[in-house]
Amino acid sequence: MPREVRERQMVDAAVEVFARRGYRTASMDEIAELAGASKPLVYLYLNSKEDLFSACIRREAEALIAAVQAAVDPAAPADRRLWNGLRAFFAHTAAHPDGWAVLHCQARSHGEPFALEVAALRQRLVDVVTRLIADTAREGGCAVPLPGEEVAGLAHALVGAAESLAGWSNGLTGSGRSDRAAAETLMNLAWAGLGNLTNGRRWAPARS
Amino acid sequence: MPREVRERQMVDAAVEVFARRGYRTASMDEIAELAGASKPLVYLYLNSKEDLFSACIRREAEALIAAVQAAVDPAAPADRRLWNGLRAFFAHTAAHPDGWAVLHCQARSHGEPFALEVAALRQRLVDVVTRLIADTAREGGCAVPLPGEEVAGLAHALVGAAESLAGWSNGLTGSGRSDRAAAETLMNLAWAGLGNLTNGRRWAPARS
Repeated sequence: MPREVRERQMVDAAVEVFARRGYRTASMDEIAELAGASKPLVYLYLNSKEDLFSACIRREAEALIAAVQAAVDPAAPADRRLWNGLRAFFAHTAAHPDGWAVLHCQARSHGEPFALEVAALRQRLVDVVTRLIADTAREGGCAVPLPGEEVAGLAHALVGAAESLAGWSNGLTGSGRSDRAAAETLMNLAWAGLGNLTNGRRWAPARS
Repeated sequence: MPREVRERQMVDAAVEVFARRGYRTASMDEIAELAGASKPLVYLYLNSKEDLFSACIRREAEALIAAVQAAVDPAAPADRRLWNGLRAFFAHTAAHPDGWAVLHCQARSHGEPFALEVAALRQRLVDVVTRLIADTAREGGCAVPLPGEEVAGLAHALVGAAESLAGWSNGLTGSGRSDRAAAETLMNLAWAGLGNLTNGRRWAPARS
């Protein structure tokens, strides 16, 4: 079996075990057994438990970012781009609950190197959303362009909203609430807001 | 000095040290020194490092929830209630960066008991926002009432957006971006969306 196939099986097994047991409790014995490999081979290929965990974080984050990017057709209208991006985000996290648990819970909870790694990967998701909002604003023909810092803030808000909603929605086992319903909820919250904002129709507090 | 004053000083010192050093690296010696108390007295009053950390989580979360609740005047119009709640959230987290670091980073990163505690306290913030949205929907005179599950989803999305935006905005040291700007960004994203939604004007994807 080629090394890359073997490695993929090991990372598959590791994602499952880390998600279930948590980083600290997970054992390399269990990961090797689930991967159908010997423990020395796991160490030979992936080096250490730390490196294996990093490999899980990287692979799961890349897969999530790729799923969102692939869904966003640059030729589609702005609302459709956002909708497709949200659909992909919630569908992917619902279909890969172990990967999502590694990224959203485990990776943040076990110290600096992993937390920094996941923060850098999350920033790439924020960058995708930032470009999406900036393009929308340009197309909206907003008389006063949205400042870059506000676009970045909006992207951080949207990503945080999606993460929080996915955590809640995916945790509702047996509720029958689908990932499509989560995408619709966030689209409904965000679109009319973004739609107005990128057309120069800002909300402002009444003077008081 | 009354015990409660002493305890408050100890928790003050602990929040500062936990935020700076992280839970594991923080030393009870440093906390005691900063509190101007002896280490045995800290143990006598707060029992253990674990219990002291829990006391920090509880106090900082209660303070944040109280600040948001106090800002939301039930007699104000719906957009003003949301605006005041957001203003309070961003102002409080910006004014208490150590408390925010304990809640948002440290408490989630050090195992089950703390993560569960902070999740339960976060749920109370979600509940405040859920009621706010439900009240808004009722007042909006929405022909088809928003389902309770969607209201809960919206609340989770808004709280996640606020956390993410606060983390980004408060981390921009020296950028001059204020907590008011963060509140305006989220209000602009959310209000027109919520405003439409609670009036029965939903976004729906074009058939494709």
